Amino acid sequence: MSLVVRQMSDAHPGPRTVFDDALIKCVEECITCFQACAACADACMAETDVVSLSKCVRRCLDCSDVCAGTAAVLSRRTAADPAVIRAAVQACLAACVASAEECELHASHHEHCRVCAEVCRRCEDACRRLLAALAFPA
Amino acid sequence: MSLVVRQMSDAHPGPRTVFDDALIKCVEECITCFQACAACADACMAETDVVSLSKCVRRCLDCSDVCAGTAAVLSRRTAADPAVIRAAVQACLAACVASAEECELHASHHEHCRVCAEVCRRCEDACRRLLAALAFPA
Amino acid sequence: MSLVVRQMSDAHPGPRTVFDDALIKCVEECITCFQACAACADACMAETDVVSLSKCVRRCLDCSDVCAGTAAVLSRRTAADPAVIRAAVQACLAACVASAEECELHASHHEHCRVCAEVCRRCEDACRRLLAALAFPA
Amino acid sequence: MSLVVRQMSDAHPGPRTVFDDALIKCVEECITCFQACAACADACMAETDVVSLSKCVRRCLDCSDVCAGTAAVLSRRTAADPAVIRAAVQACLAACVASAEECELHASHHEHCRVCAEVCRRCEDACRRLLAALAFPA
Repeated sequence: MSLVVRQMSDAHPGPRTVFDDALIKCVEECITCFQACAACADACMAETDVVSLSKCVRRCLDCSDVCAGTAAVLSRRTAADPAVIRAAVQACLAACVASAEECELHASHHEHCRVCAEVCRRCEDACRRLLAALAFPA
Repeated sequence: MSLVVRQMSDAHPGPRTVFDDALIKCVEECITCFQACAACADACMAETDVVSLSKCVRRCLDCSDVCAGTAAVLSRRTAADPAVIRAAVQACLAACVASAEECELHASHHEHCRVCAEVCRRCEDACRRLLAALAFPA
Repeated sequence: MSLVVRQMSDAHPGPRTVFDDALIKCVEECITCFQACAACADACMAETDVVSLSKCVRRCLDCSDVCAGTAAVLSRRTAADPAVIRAAVQACLAACVASAEECELHASHHEHCRVCAEVCRRCEDACRRLLAALAFPA
Repeated sequence: MSLVVRQMSDAHPGPRTVFDDALIKCVEECITCFQACAACADACMAETDVVSLSKCVRRCLDCSDVCAGTAAVLSRRTAADPAVIRAAVQACLAACVASAEECELHASHHEHCRVCAEVCRRCEDACRRLLAALAFPA
C-alpha cells in the first residue's frame, strides 16, 4: 500500500515550488487523519463507556471532515489562492489539536484513541511545517 | 423544498445559545454554496472558453469542499470547540471570497458564474455574521 | 433561504434532458439529508440513552457521507456516465432506507430522529423517482 | 508515510470478521483514489489540451467524491448495514471504472492520467474483492 501524492504532484504541468515537500507531506497526513478520525469516532461509539466519549466522537468527526476538505484543496496546484490555502491549513491544524487533546485523555485505555491521537499530532505538525514553509503564521 | 437546519438545531437536547440564528443561517448558506460551487465548476468545464475559466474551476472546487466540511462541523452542537468553529468558519469565508471574486469576472457572460458569485457572497456574509456573533475576528 | 439547484442546472451550457426535474429534486433532497443526518448523529450523541442509539449514529453518519457524495455527482451535467449515476443513486437510496428505518424506531421519543427519518424517506423517494426517470432499477 | 487503517480496524472493540483483510485493503485504495482523482482533475485543468480532457475531469471528480464517502462508510465497524456496504462499494467500483477508462485514453501523453488510471484500477480491484468476500455481486 502506498499513496501517490508525490507522483501526482510531480506530474502536474505547472512549475515546482520550494514548499512542495511540505505540501505533499501535509496531504499525506490529512488523508491518513481523515480515515483514522472517522474510524476512532466509530470505535468510541462501540465502547461501553461511550457516554464519557461523546466529546471525543465530536472532535474526531470534525477533524475527519476538515482533513478531507483540506486534503482536496491541497491536492490542487492550479491557480492556488494563498489566503484559501492558509485558512484551510489553519482550520485543519485547529481540528487536529482539538481531536488529539481529547483522544490523549483516553489513550491509556483505548488503543484506537492512542493511535488516532498520534495521527492527529503528526497531521498538526505537518500543518505547522507547511504554514512555516509558506511563511504564514500557525 | 425546504432545509431542516433549524428544526434539527432546535431538536438537539443541549441548551440554546445567543448565536443560534447566526449558526443556522451559516449552515444553510454553506450547503447551498457547496452545491452551487460544484455545479459552477462543472458548467465552466463545458464552456467553449474553458481555458480562461481554469482559475474559476479551481476556486469553485475549493469552495465546494470547504463549505461541505464547514456545514458538517457547524451542524454539530455537542461539545463544540470554539477554536475549531472559528478556524473552520474563517476558512469557509476565505474560500467564498476567492470563489466570488473569480466568478464575478465571468458573471456578465456566464449565468452560472453570476448565480454562484451571489451564493458565495451570501455565504461569506453569513460567515462574517457568525464570527461577529461569536466575538471572533473575521 | 432557498437552494439554487435549478438555477445552476438551467445555466449549464449543455442540453436539457427529460429527467432534469427528477435530477434537481434528488440533489435538493440529498443535500438536505446530508445536513439532517450529520445533525441527527450529533444529537443522538448528546442523549442520555446514547447507548441505545449507536446504531442510529452509524446509519446517520453513513447516510450523511453518501448523500454528500451523491449530491456532488448529481450536480454535474458534463459528460455524465450513466453507470456511475445509477450506482451512486442506488447507494444513496440504500443509505437513506437504513437511516430512516433506524431513526423511525426512535422517532416517538426523539424529535431529531422523527425529522431526520422524514428527510431520509423524502430523499429515498427522490432517488426512486430519479432511477425510474432514468429507466434504471431501484 | 503509512496509513493506519489496519491498526484502527484492529483497535475497534467489536469482533473480527473473515473479510477484514478485504475491507482494510479497500479502505486504503479508496483514500488513495480519493486523493489521486482530485489531483488528476486539477492537473487536467492546467493542460493546454484541457478541452479534450473535460470528460476526464468529470469522471475524476465523481470518483474522488464517491471514494471519499465510501472510505468513510467502510472505516466504520459499528452496526454495519450489509445493503449499504454493498451499494456503496458497487458505486465506488462504477466510479473507478469510469475514471480509469477515461484516464487510460490520455495515459500515453499525461503522466497524471497514467498514474491515476492505475490507482483507479487498483481500487476497482479492491472493490471487486471486497464484494466477493462479502458474497455480493460486483
